[in-house]
Amino acid sequence: MSVPLRLSRGQAKARTRNRLLAAAAEVFAEQGFAGASVDEIASRAGHTVGALYSHFTGKDELFLTLFDEHAAHRLDGVEEIASQWEEDQTVFVALGEYLAEIADQHTVWSTLEMEFLRYALTRPELLDRLAARWWAPRTAVARLVAPHCAAHDPVAVSTAIIGLFEGLVTQRRVDRAAVPSELFAEALRWLTAGLAHSSGPAAANTPQPPRPACRETGRKRTRRTS
Amino acid sequence: MSVPLRLSRGQAKARTRNRLLAAAAEVFAEQGFAGASVDEIASRAGHTVGALYSHFTGKDELFLTLFDEHAAHRLDGVEEIASQWEEDQTVFVALGEYLAEIADQHTVWSTLEMEFLRYALTRPELLDRLAARWWAPRTAVARLVAPHCAAHDPVAVSTAIIGLFEGLVTQRRVDRAAVPSELFAEALRWLTAGLAHSSGPAAANTPQPPRPACRETGRKRTRRTS
Repeated sequence: MSVPLRLSRGQAKARTRNRLLAAAAEVFAEQGFAGASVDEIASRAGHTVGALYSHFTGKDELFLTLFDEHAAHRLDGVEEIASQWEEDQTVFVALGEYLAEIADQHTVWSTLEMEFLRYALTRPELLDRLAARWWAPRTAVARLVAPHCAAHDPVAVSTAIIGLFEGLVTQRRVDRAAVPSELFAEALRWLTAGLAHSSGPAAANTPQPPRPACRETGRKRTRRTS
Repeated sequence: MSVPLRLSRGQAKARTRNRLLAAAAEVFAEQGFAGASVDEIASRAGHTVGALYSHFTGKDELFLTLFDEHAAHRLDGVEEIASQWEEDQTVFVALGEYLAEIADQHTVWSTLEMEFLRYALTRPELLDRLAARWWAPRTAVARLVAPHCAAHDPVAVSTAIIGLFEGLVTQRRVDRAAVPSELFAEALRWLTAGLAHSSGPAAANTPQPPRPACRETGRKRTRRTS
């Protein structure tokens, strides 16, 4: 055990917060999002449930804060690779490898994300918070790809790239042979080559500005729910 | 009540099977995959649990059979639209609208799929069955796009298209404004324009033949599981 240091009030607060987040990450990884309890997270962090609630509104916010950390971490990696965007071929290979690595290594996290999404889908307030969160990586990728978007809306391109990545990750988790790691790079290459060689959006397709937490409120009623 | 008809043994068997599937679809929609019980499904169908088990190995197989029905139904729609592939622009608009419609209307089903996938991820035997199932839509889309793939592997292109679609659906469910329905068509256009204007795969990227139920068995150990 290290000798306890005298911490300022701010330092002590930050330490408690970090301990709670680290404990939440552990408990989520072990028990899933649904299975984790705030009691267990607080006790794992060496704090009371009261202390937990003085830092976070609950399990949802602990998860969303961890989400921010993961998103920032992933994006650092993407930005580092994209900074060499000039040498096209190499960049795609490097980016594809990085994405395949995320697909293969962050399996616990992606399972948690899936559970959380499932849980948020029936909770409109939480879904709004998740939607706001998803704008950060979307606008960051849009900024990266903007110089390569020709006449197309960078936010739309970013949304497609993220969609492509997430959709390939899901398929690769179910069936690794179906999604060779090179496919991440190949598919990105097709998409970006297509941007250069296709005309701009039709008039009806006005680019959506990045408006955090701004979902369409009046969702159309579904005709079928099968 | 209709007057009971005298059914052949085969007809009676088929009717029981269909009733069980219809009941399963209802109970899954109401209670989710995790919440549904075989008792409830059997009783809703007007049969015993024993009868259920004489037709299906359990809840998993009921879900997988419903999955097949949904996949076949979706694919019929895609094939109908793709049969007019010649008139490029119109086809993409029609295909995009169809995909956006699936995204918006099949919300109960896509939530069930998400739950089932989450459940299957920790059950290798079930994951293999799901992986085998996913090859059917993949090879069907590959067949459709093959004439438009230039030097690229149609199965890889199909995998990317399905990934793109699924990734956009997920984002649209969280944030409809972030994924305008036109984006499905736009992104498909970029991808297919890119196929025509990019070179074939690198030598290392040998096309994967469609091998149902043939996942790589020796999965690499993950370095991190964060």
